[in-house]
Amino acid sequence: MAADVARPAKLGLCVACHGDTGISRIPGTPHIAGQDEIYLRKALTEYRDGRRHGGPMNAAAGGLSAADIDALAAWYAAQRWPAAAEGTP
Amino acid sequence: MAADVARPAKLGLCVACHGDTGISRIPGTPHIAGQDEIYLRKALTEYRDGRRHGGPMNAAAGGLSAADIDALAAWYAAQRWPAAAEGTP
Repeated sequence: MAADVARPAKLGLCVACHGDTGISRIPGTPHIAGQDEIYLRKALTEYRDGRRHGGPMNAAAGGLSAADIDALAAWYAAQRWPAAAEGTP
Repeated sequence: MAADVARPAKLGLCVACHGDTGISRIPGTPHIAGQDEIYLRKALTEYRDGRRHGGPMNAAAGGLSAADIDALAAWYAAQRWPAAAEGTP
């Protein structure tokens, strides 16, 4: 659960689009609360390394270390995703 | 909600990895239940057109029409994502 995972030092890079808890408020931006942790690490690494292209994601991930990526993936994977009825418009 | 969205003709391409309801049982495969519908359409279109690379996703999406993609995005966006405590190991 979220309470067991340390708040990542680089979380500020993410929150404008994905929120503190991974629930996007911007249409077209994925929700990442409770997302598979391995998938999140893979996505961030691919964005950082230019193997996946996602507009602001490449800039946001560009300076992340492997430890930063681990911390961010663990954080968002540990968040709770509200059921669709409550969580998405 | 799921009950209001027609079951897509091509759903069989997705379920082995993402399940009928978008809850992945395969580590590294993203959950897509309740995911942002615009994001899902974008991801499927990019996989289909080779602008995003995702192993089995490029083959799975390769033959999808725009209508297929709309139907699949609507289906998974309408599913309920269980809260992390119940939905992910």
